[in-house]
Amino acid sequence: MTAVEPVARGAALDVPSGRPAALETPGPGDPRIARFSLNQATTKHIGLVEAVEVCRRAGVPAIGVWRDRLHEVGLEAAVRLLREAGLRVSTLCRGGFLTASGAEERAEALRDNRLAIDEAAALGTGTLVMVVGGLPAGSKDLPGARQRVVDAVGELAPYAGERGVRLALEPLHPMYVADRAVISTLGQALDIAEQFPLEQVGVTVDTFHVFWDPEVERQIARAGARIATYQVCDWITPLPADTLLARGMMGDGHIDFGSISRAVHAAGYRGDVETEIFHADVWAADPDEVVATVLRRYVEHVLVG
Amino acid sequence: MTAVEPVARGAALDVPSGRPAALETPGPGDPRIARFSLNQATTKHIGLVEAVEVCRRAGVPAIGVWRDRLHEVGLEAAVRLLREAGLRVSTLCRGGFLTASGAEERAEALRDNRLAIDEAAALGTGTLVMVVGGLPAGSKDLPGARQRVVDAVGELAPYAGERGVRLALEPLHPMYVADRAVISTLGQALDIAEQFPLEQVGVTVDTFHVFWDPEVERQIARAGARIATYQVCDWITPLPADTLLARGMMGDGHIDFGSISRAVHAAGYRGDVETEIFHADVWAADPDEVVATVLRRYVEHVLVG
Repeated sequence: MTAVEPVARGAALDVPSGRPAALETPGPGDPRIARFSLNQATTKHIGLVEAVEVCRRAGVPAIGVWRDRLHEVGLEAAVRLLREAGLRVSTLCRGGFLTASGAEERAEALRDNRLAIDEAAALGTGTLVMVVGGLPAGSKDLPGARQRVVDAVGELAPYAGERGVRLALEPLHPMYVADRAVISTLGQALDIAEQFPLEQVGVTVDTFHVFWDPEVERQIARAGARIATYQVCDWITPLPADTLLARGMMGDGHIDFGSISRAVHAAGYRGDVETEIFHADVWAADPDEVVATVLRRYVEHVLVG
Repeated sequence: MTAVEPVARGAALDVPSGRPAALETPGPGDPRIARFSLNQATTKHIGLVEAVEVCRRAGVPAIGVWRDRLHEVGLEAAVRLLREAGLRVSTLCRGGFLTASGAEERAEALRDNRLAIDEAAALGTGTLVMVVGGLPAGSKDLPGARQRVVDAVGELAPYAGERGVRLALEPLHPMYVADRAVISTLGQALDIAEQFPLEQVGVTVDTFHVFWDPEVERQIARAGARIATYQVCDWITPLPADTLLARGMMGDGHIDFGSISRAVHAAGYRGDVETEIFHADVWAADPDEVVATVLRRYVEHVLVG
């Protein structure tokens, strides 16, 4: 501690809140961020090449890659880029959308998921995040859609396992049940995952999607080694008009990250922790400032153990 | 069936969709609407006197009364009005908001809930719907807020029971957990209700709030005689900017009412079924047309047994 620190601290402002930073930004090599990963969705408006540069400047050791940004660069070039930057790929986002009822759509979904598994293997990540899909247009049959997810996971799981990739079923907040994911709770995701070998099917624990659940700590404990990735962002109120963009900067909302982080740690998870923010104001901010803020907020709110 | 019917039918349009009515509007005395109740929230912009008139014209046998509208009229006048109209009061909406952590706010909440219980008793309804409240400003402590709900219900339950009123704990959709109700699932509501005598504390089953839950049918069966009221409205996508107004006309959204109605029936519930819609377009429509549409949609989508 030196006399100059409070001044330096005072100079940094968090985005998008504009609040003074609560602590110094952890830099490259800081052991507190050794397990930190920047999910690309957090810097939505830049491509993979720029995101890798942002990570390098900030000393971020890992990245969660999105497929649309991967395809812009091309798989081989992306593998080279990430290797040269020394960045771990914590997850590939995302497979899934397995609820189609037509044979042709279903076959196309399976084909695309196998491609995603191949991509994950090439990137050297063991984790493919799976957003399972909502109700098909006009359907109100949640049990039917859920059964199709189980069936499709059963087809994909051995293919993934053979390639060293685990399908990380992601329960999404129940407000997305109709249009995005018919899996809404961690307990429900585990009911499916546990039908398959541990190394083939796991779950995603994302604070935004599960914090509300009175069962969350119990289900995290149950999940144990099924936890394939831990993702964080905050729950902001009032919800914005587009509820897909309600996922805010840690510390700006209502989530008690400490209790969830402790439960995830107690369950034995020691992998990367991804910041995955979907928020118009975060996306509009300078990516370097966004990453500096998420690093500070990660240390302040999320880090335990 | 007569030749003129399709023409008559074609003349009626549902609100707010503008779709042709699928069936004739059930009229006064129709046995299919013997258990139908109009929750006042559905006709948000008219007072109790007008709502009673709308019910009388349509042959609606029961009404769910809101306290703000009750207070406009005054309790004694409302009791007289409802008795003269021959309208049953299916529920009083609403008590709750029990999560305050300060002693003064807490005492005020208990006082107001006792008043609501007295009002329910005077209106002759056995059911006070309870929206339990969200996180106090600045708090992230969901377990603490939930414990305060349990404690407050414990203080209120005997008072309610002595007056023949049952507290109907309402799980609200998890998207309201931070700002409106820290009870998010039927299972969680039952975990609380079951700590108290059956005649003092029950639960509200509202399709909008519970349809997404993979446990919903199991928890409805578990609820059995704890079901104090059954409320219906639909889940519309995309969610409107104000998510409090996402509760649409039955049949316009994604909910499979049949499966929930059958579960509620199988659990033994034979009380009134309230249509409770919060939607700007429904509120903007003519109240008589709204009631005609909800009666048709109730018979088409909700009614079983």
